[in-house]
Amino acid sequence: MTFASDNWAGAAPEILDAIARANVGAVPGYGGDDLTKKVEARFCEVFEKDCRVFFVATGGAANGLALSVLLPPYGMILAHEASHVQMDECAGPEFFTGGAKILPVAGADGKLTPDGVAGALAGFPERPPHGAPAACLSLTQGTECGTIYSVSELTDLCAAARHAGLTVHLDGARFANAAAALGAAPADLSWRAGVDVLCFGGTKNGCIAAEAVIFFDPEKAADFEFRRKRAGHLWSKMRFIAAQFDGYFENGLWLDLAARANAMAKKLSAGLGAIDGVEISYPTEINEVFAVFPDGVAEHLRDQGRVFFPWVTPGDPAGGKMQRLICSFRTTDEDIASFLDAARRAG
Amino acid sequence: MTFASDNWAGAAPEILDAIARANVGAVPGYGGDDLTKKVEARFCEVFEKDCRVFFVATGGAANGLALSVLLPPYGMILAHEASHVQMDECAGPEFFTGGAKILPVAGADGKLTPDGVAGALAGFPERPPHGAPAACLSLTQGTECGTIYSVSELTDLCAAARHAGLTVHLDGARFANAAAALGAAPADLSWRAGVDVLCFGGTKNGCIAAEAVIFFDPEKAADFEFRRKRAGHLWSKMRFIAAQFDGYFENGLWLDLAARANAMAKKLSAGLGAIDGVEISYPTEINEVFAVFPDGVAEHLRDQGRVFFPWVTPGDPAGGKMQRLICSFRTTDEDIASFLDAARRAG
Amino acid sequence: MTFASDNWAGAAPEILDAIARANVGAVPGYGGDDLTKKVEARFCEVFEKDCRVFFVATGGAANGLALSVLLPPYGMILAHEASHVQMDECAGPEFFTGGAKILPVAGADGKLTPDGVAGALAGFPERPPHGAPAACLSLTQGTECGTIYSVSELTDLCAAARHAGLTVHLDGARFANAAAALGAAPADLSWRAGVDVLCFGGTKNGCIAAEAVIFFDPEKAADFEFRRKRAGHLWSKMRFIAAQFDGYFENGLWLDLAARANAMAKKLSAGLGAIDGVEISYPTEINEVFAVFPDGVAEHLRDQGRVFFPWVTPGDPAGGKMQRLICSFRTTDEDIASFLDAARRAG
Amino acid sequence: MTFASDNWAGAAPEILDAIARANVGAVPGYGGDDLTKKVEARFCEVFEKDCRVFFVATGGAANGLALSVLLPPYGMILAHEASHVQMDECAGPEFFTGGAKILPVAGADGKLTPDGVAGALAGFPERPPHGAPAACLSLTQGTECGTIYSVSELTDLCAAARHAGLTVHLDGARFANAAAALGAAPADLSWRAGVDVLCFGGTKNGCIAAEAVIFFDPEKAADFEFRRKRAGHLWSKMRFIAAQFDGYFENGLWLDLAARANAMAKKLSAGLGAIDGVEISYPTEINEVFAVFPDGVAEHLRDQGRVFFPWVTPGDPAGGKMQRLICSFRTTDEDIASFLDAARRAG
Repeated sequence: MTFASDNWAGAAPEILDAIARANVGAVPGYGGDDLTKKVEARFCEVFEKDCRVFFVATGGAANGLALSVLLPPYGMILAHEASHVQMDECAGPEFFTGGAKILPVAGADGKLTPDGVAGALAGFPERPPHGAPAACLSLTQGTECGTIYSVSELTDLCAAARHAGLTVHLDGARFANAAAALGAAPADLSWRAGVDVLCFGGTKNGCIAAEAVIFFDPEKAADFEFRRKRAGHLWSKMRFIAAQFDGYFENGLWLDLAARANAMAKKLSAGLGAIDGVEISYPTEINEVFAVFPDGVAEHLRDQGRVFFPWVTPGDPAGGKMQRLICSFRTTDEDIASFLDAARRAG
Repeated sequence: MTFASDNWAGAAPEILDAIARANVGAVPGYGGDDLTKKVEARFCEVFEKDCRVFFVATGGAANGLALSVLLPPYGMILAHEASHVQMDECAGPEFFTGGAKILPVAGADGKLTPDGVAGALAGFPERPPHGAPAACLSLTQGTECGTIYSVSELTDLCAAARHAGLTVHLDGARFANAAAALGAAPADLSWRAGVDVLCFGGTKNGCIAAEAVIFFDPEKAADFEFRRKRAGHLWSKMRFIAAQFDGYFENGLWLDLAARANAMAKKLSAGLGAIDGVEISYPTEINEVFAVFPDGVAEHLRDQGRVFFPWVTPGDPAGGKMQRLICSFRTTDEDIASFLDAARRAG
Repeated sequence: MTFASDNWAGAAPEILDAIARANVGAVPGYGGDDLTKKVEARFCEVFEKDCRVFFVATGGAANGLALSVLLPPYGMILAHEASHVQMDECAGPEFFTGGAKILPVAGADGKLTPDGVAGALAGFPERPPHGAPAACLSLTQGTECGTIYSVSELTDLCAAARHAGLTVHLDGARFANAAAALGAAPADLSWRAGVDVLCFGGTKNGCIAAEAVIFFDPEKAADFEFRRKRAGHLWSKMRFIAAQFDGYFENGLWLDLAARANAMAKKLSAGLGAIDGVEISYPTEINEVFAVFPDGVAEHLRDQGRVFFPWVTPGDPAGGKMQRLICSFRTTDEDIASFLDAARRAG
Repeated sequence: MTFASDNWAGAAPEILDAIARANVGAVPGYGGDDLTKKVEARFCEVFEKDCRVFFVATGGAANGLALSVLLPPYGMILAHEASHVQMDECAGPEFFTGGAKILPVAGADGKLTPDGVAGALAGFPERPPHGAPAACLSLTQGTECGTIYSVSELTDLCAAARHAGLTVHLDGARFANAAAALGAAPADLSWRAGVDVLCFGGTKNGCIAAEAVIFFDPEKAADFEFRRKRAGHLWSKMRFIAAQFDGYFENGLWLDLAARANAMAKKLSAGLGAIDGVEISYPTEINEVFAVFPDGVAEHLRDQGRVFFPWVTPGDPAGGKMQRLICSFRTTDEDIASFLDAARRAG
């Protein structure tokens, strides 16, 4: 039992089954196979729109490649100061774009607001060609703080971006968790809200290594296929990413897995919040719980073999004492009960 | 039945089994798991040397990332004019290195020679800081022309590189095929011959997506882990690449699969060579056959549903009329017999 | 008469004379000439240290190239949120470094503090290889807000950087103004304080196009000459940058010019500050004055043909109403008197 | 007296005069001044076309920046194997483009031919997204071998490029020499022939540091101004590059200087060719002479203080024994006579 990260969980059995099913016969490489085409079409159904879909193996690749077609190499991305693109990709967006700048923007609970974006833009006024021109707004759904944008919040942010001439990138490494939590149509959480490109994650939610970059305006996909290839992200045996998504969408598995992880996190959060001296740092809206324990408790729990990590964000409300606990589709009621029990006794 | 490419074949069942076996429990992400460590150690055994091993999913990533630590961003790579790094990676090495130059070098049968390398260097003399300084020799084993370097050829080339102050990169997307064909120890085909970094392929030979970048001098690995991460090539669920290599090395599977493909190619080559008017373009030393058919024959075979591609290399001896036929671990004696039969009748 | 920028002023006559003097005979290109060597040696004298000096034509080139050897392409630069490298170089540092990240840090009056740096680092903790590793602290002397670091402030910042494992870059586009204002030895404002590389500006202070990148530890210069060349910043007729610095250092011209501009700014600032309703935004320590005028005054002055620009910085204390007025070595007492007179009447 | 390079000569006095004339008053920076506008307009007159003109200080910057807007970062440039962009810019084009590939193409006398280009393209067939897509043909006029393309040769090459979907870049570091030699209208040597972008050099021909990037289709200039800025190639005191071109065009100075250098080279070439045992390697069509001396002669001349360099090109007809002698606008009849005399006696 661990709350270290959703990527510590392995793959859902249905995903492995789908891979095994796909391992039949010789088929064209590089995405020319029927299964890839079928799954691409499935994405169009799920998102209720003709779109261009590209598969890659990691979220960092998806984000970096998507951004590289959404802005010029000297352009500027506005992103939350705690976002994955800013904090966790080892300057990957800068690499993929060929040197674009990220302007970190503050916002409560890991979320940006139209006012926050407007303020950041006002502080970095357009003076071509001196300042890097603001070109793209990068959002995350659900966020790195375990929160989610409502459909209307997302829509307002995209409108603000559009108004400022920015394209909109959505990092959806935990898009499934957000969709499951909101019960909203994928379309409402993406193109209908104004998102240009969605990086749709499978890996954190039961796949082995499967991410999809979805261009809702096929023309915007531009030269993505060249960029994916030169970055070494075009799989020759593409059917094996396609297969993962095939299994992922079957019978709504993707939403089931996410809902399970979300539910466990809610339980964990509620239980922790009820313990004297524990403070929940952000609303627990998906599968991540952030909490500050009384002094010594986290260490004590770790000494007992409980695995979870301290977490710092810029502008951290808890001054570096926050802990992050993540649930996955594999987390069980027993895991939660056992952890809460230990936490109560450690307090 | 197809001779299109070794990547049209799916995965060997043993590889899928190994993946399934690895899907147990929660384990650390990003390569911190025991299986990854076990398989890294296995590489050290196979290569009879303490080395640093990094897993990625594609050959393009392996090559590009390896090169990025082997030379500075303004350095020059010497590579065969028909090599994968030059012809097939959409300027990936240039991307990963941050702008290094590739100087294409000619050589018979897809192979470089010390004289060829010396000649290329003589034609691009060092005049710091004007010319891009020659910094790395990139070799391929087995080559894109289906040939192999003997241990002594490889050793001589590495010595020539060393003499000229070049590091040595070996693109081993088909290293298994070369090792099986030569019956040589992996160490003799790599570090003992003078190779600094080997990109060891699994994907073309029965894996799903598994390549290993092997630094024989651990210190040379330098900042590889940062470069892999920022390029989106660090898998969070790393155990699933490790598992593939686990299966790959078990009971010598890697050499068995390669030997099978090689044997099929030999048969195909011999059979085709015996047909009147068919010319074999290069010695068939691994699993690739290059041939020129009498006019109309290739088209006729394709019309019948036989799948294989025309192939062009710079300095092509066959003036653009060459065909490439690749065998995989899945190719059967029946496939060969059937194709040869069709070829004979089409002639 | 204009207060638009110090780069609106042309060249000091002494600089043009020095260029003319250098235009004699045929001399080696690319810096192999005697004058370049003489001036490089002059830098070592001025800075009281053996150092490696490289000439380029612009401040953006100096900063970008210097940073490119001070950190890896995936590293992170900490810089003031209002600094030139962050706000005014169109993502140049990201370009030159091959994708490094800039983390903007707040600080009063355009200045960083050790606490500010420590706080920024705490909010972006090292988690290799996930976050871009903090690698370099970039400071500006004098700052974009017209302020200066004292020797002890600079020393403390460099110590904090060293403690955190960061190299130190100093953008000295207005280094002369700072040196003149402080009356400090150039060495005390650079290597003795802990600076690794200084970008020493001449252009804003009477040269045509002359900047020097000074490595105080010659070994750190590493591959600068290759990087300068590939970026198109190696002049073939290098003597003509050397000549500018030759004239610049003669008889202390560089400090005289800077002192003159500083003195004019002091006068302007004092005069403006005495006008009812005018607020001086930052201490006027070099040749830049930042002020907020009563509503309509700035516009009125501009309508009369007075040239100066509104200026915005992130975290601007004046909410976007600030004006920037820059004096140069050409600014006269009459210019100041005339402007103050107009400002008084416009109030 | 030296024949080392045209950049060993300083500046023509008229150029320095023009700089001095421009040093009057305060004018807008970054090219917003009247002189810059005047000179831009002058370029449109000289080239008989409305075009967008951008000034930079070096030929490497001009070439790299021009290429960066002429092809995508994963695209391929075809260039002569002896061209400056391939051999002399320390991988600058790869840097500026963000990783584009250069495919070196052979051709007699430093010149490409439509057949040579077609052959290179045939050897690197389009297989999107695998190979870097051929995107740009880069030509040089006059060439690095001291030869020139006639108007019809240039027109044929541009037509071949257009036919293959390539943009055309012309490196005109010695454009003046070519124009003077051919007596052709600048328009006939550029846009009328089919050139998209010309890098028009002033530095080698009497300027201090002045190159112009000319986009004949203003729309193709695209984001050049952002790229120039981020690369540190936008001068704040732009008037001082404009001034150089102002002087350069006055009374046809540019063609006079070039014609003088050309005439000297013709004389030198004729004289050397008449010496027993000296072989002229390429036709002497501009200001560069390439020759092979009898054994020991070059060394002997150098021992006497004569300065000129050995020169190697890939595919060098003279097996590394070639010498390069360059004349400049400063070369005199006496220089030639003295050198020929010495050469005769050394033979």
